[in-house]
Amino acid sequence: MRVSDLGEFGLIELVQQWTQTTGPDFVSPAAYRLAVPNGDDAAAITFPSGPVTELYTTDTMVDGVHFTSATTPWRDLGWKAIASNISDVAAMGGDPAAVLITLGMPPDTLVSDIRDLYLGMIDICGEFGAQIIGGDMVRSPLAFITVALTGVATGPPMVRTAAEPGHLVAVTGPVGGSAGGLRQLLDGCGASNSGESTLILQHRRPYPHAAAGKMLVAAGVSSAMDVSDGLADDLAKLCSASGVAATIFSHQVPALPALKTAFPNNWLDLALYGGEDYVLLFTAPGDIMDAALLALPEGAAVVGEITDGDRGVVTILDESGTPVPPAGAGWDHFAD
Amino acid sequence: MRVSDLGEFGLIELVQQWTQTTGPDFVSPAAYRLAVPNGDDAAAITFPSGPVTELYTTDTMVDGVHFTSATTPWRDLGWKAIASNISDVAAMGGDPAAVLITLGMPPDTLVSDIRDLYLGMIDICGEFGAQIIGGDMVRSPLAFITVALTGVATGPPMVRTAAEPGHLVAVTGPVGGSAGGLRQLLDGCGASNSGESTLILQHRRPYPHAAAGKMLVAAGVSSAMDVSDGLADDLAKLCSASGVAATIFSHQVPALPALKTAFPNNWLDLALYGGEDYVLLFTAPGDIMDAALLALPEGAAVVGEITDGDRGVVTILDESGTPVPPAGAGWDHFAD
Repeated sequence: MRVSDLGEFGLIELVQQWTQTTGPDFVSPAAYRLAVPNGDDAAAITFPSGPVTELYTTDTMVDGVHFTSATTPWRDLGWKAIASNISDVAAMGGDPAAVLITLGMPPDTLVSDIRDLYLGMIDICGEFGAQIIGGDMVRSPLAFITVALTGVATGPPMVRTAAEPGHLVAVTGPVGGSAGGLRQLLDGCGASNSGESTLILQHRRPYPHAAAGKMLVAAGVSSAMDVSDGLADDLAKLCSASGVAATIFSHQVPALPALKTAFPNNWLDLALYGGEDYVLLFTAPGDIMDAALLALPEGAAVVGEITDGDRGVVTILDESGTPVPPAGAGWDHFAD
Repeated sequence: MRVSDLGEFGLIELVQQWTQTTGPDFVSPAAYRLAVPNGDDAAAITFPSGPVTELYTTDTMVDGVHFTSATTPWRDLGWKAIASNISDVAAMGGDPAAVLITLGMPPDTLVSDIRDLYLGMIDICGEFGAQIIGGDMVRSPLAFITVALTGVATGPPMVRTAAEPGHLVAVTGPVGGSAGGLRQLLDGCGASNSGESTLILQHRRPYPHAAAGKMLVAAGVSSAMDVSDGLADDLAKLCSASGVAATIFSHQVPALPALKTAFPNNWLDLALYGGEDYVLLFTAPGDIMDAALLALPEGAAVVGEITDGDRGVVTILDESGTPVPPAGAGWDHFAD
């Protein structure tokens, strides 16, 4: 059997099974405790007398698969490579801290491009108080960037496994903007460097919701993940991890006016299935949801509810209660 | 200017300069202190009230550059990918703890190969008390494995910047075995799975010197690194980081009898320039060196001394005091 037959998520399940052989009764020489295992946005460990929970995450971008220099300048690529990791840590309610950068690149890569890449990484590290402390650089026929990021959380980490029937489902901001920006870039609209559209900026400089993540923890939210593969698809993952189902009310899904203007006929598809939004998706009972929405900045919205239907199934209803047919699919890393 | 014009170490220096803009007066929201910055075997951070120093390292292997399935079976590849990272942590005097695995692979990769890869990783994690807690899997036209490893040290981390003129230079075990094994594999000797030679096992299952690293710290050693790119080349890096020079006495360099037997004419070249040895290289004044050698298992040996010559220059002398001409060069990731 090949990886493509199994798909990304089948493979991830297998790897989780294999690596659990070092298992729940594992005792590390360092005597830390694995508070949140593999399978969430980030793994979380606590040291017995340590002051914080540490969060560990890693994310990779491969040339021609996750980016092309045609749609993403190097400096923005540097920003994005770290943004996706900060977003994972934000989804647990943490702040980023230490960053390791691995670069694979062909020997004929321009040094000035690498410098631009690092400038973008330094931009976002400065913005979020993170620090690049090490890494590795290797020769590779094709370019790739792997970021490993350690974060810290002072409260209990939010997880994907805590959604319960009756919870409301919400996002911390509008979705679909990044996908709209990518569509504009691929269509050749607004690809000039000057006067980039709002949507292209969303695609090139996504701003992880780290502050929102901490507000959620403070409000008592325990169930969250980040939206990286599309709202509908990521909600299905959260439901699958929690053993529940969900309904999305499509008319409640928040989107930027710029998205609705640029894509009047299919903005909802982009909002539901677009990906790379890096807002947070969370669920909570009504009273905690009220407190969370009061604390969050404008743009956050309730978009649905958790139900006790078939595990991992997300139903999308329009304003009249009619099911919206699925128009797209989330990102599978091994799909053709 | 292209990366190949600059070379690996020129590029690393530039990146260190760029990333220092988040600089020495950087205050993290997590309030940790960067005890050992980018440029050593691992970065080290301490939390104000934390019980240990945390070590962070990452290492990547790219198909066709750092390995080929012809010379390294998948299970051994899994072992090696983590071994190089454990060795980095060992060089600081620490134990490995949490591991993140990133795999890039073509969609037609066999799931059974990925399973073998993980079995090798689980083998070495079990041996060294480490635990795989997360990672990322992505589609890529060519396979690569990136390991990010967090370790812990209870004593002060050993660094590359602490060698001083008058120190003796030693290694914690024989060198050249892995390079000899690779040579045998490439020459087609002993490539069968049964009855693998001692040297091929050294190449396929290098055993990081984590226990030795802790013995060194206990003996008072403060200057060390691991030997991954060849003894002569790595000693030059240590000297460069410390602003000193060194002399190697070639007749004192320890090598396995199997290496001398298999390569009677060029075992010394393999020992000096081979790479992937994963023993530790360390320097210390005479009294501390005596204590360290008493504590270390058989195979450790003094191989030279630190001098106040030109920064980073390593001179190799034979038994009669005659300079040995350089016969090879260390590994540059961007050389052709």
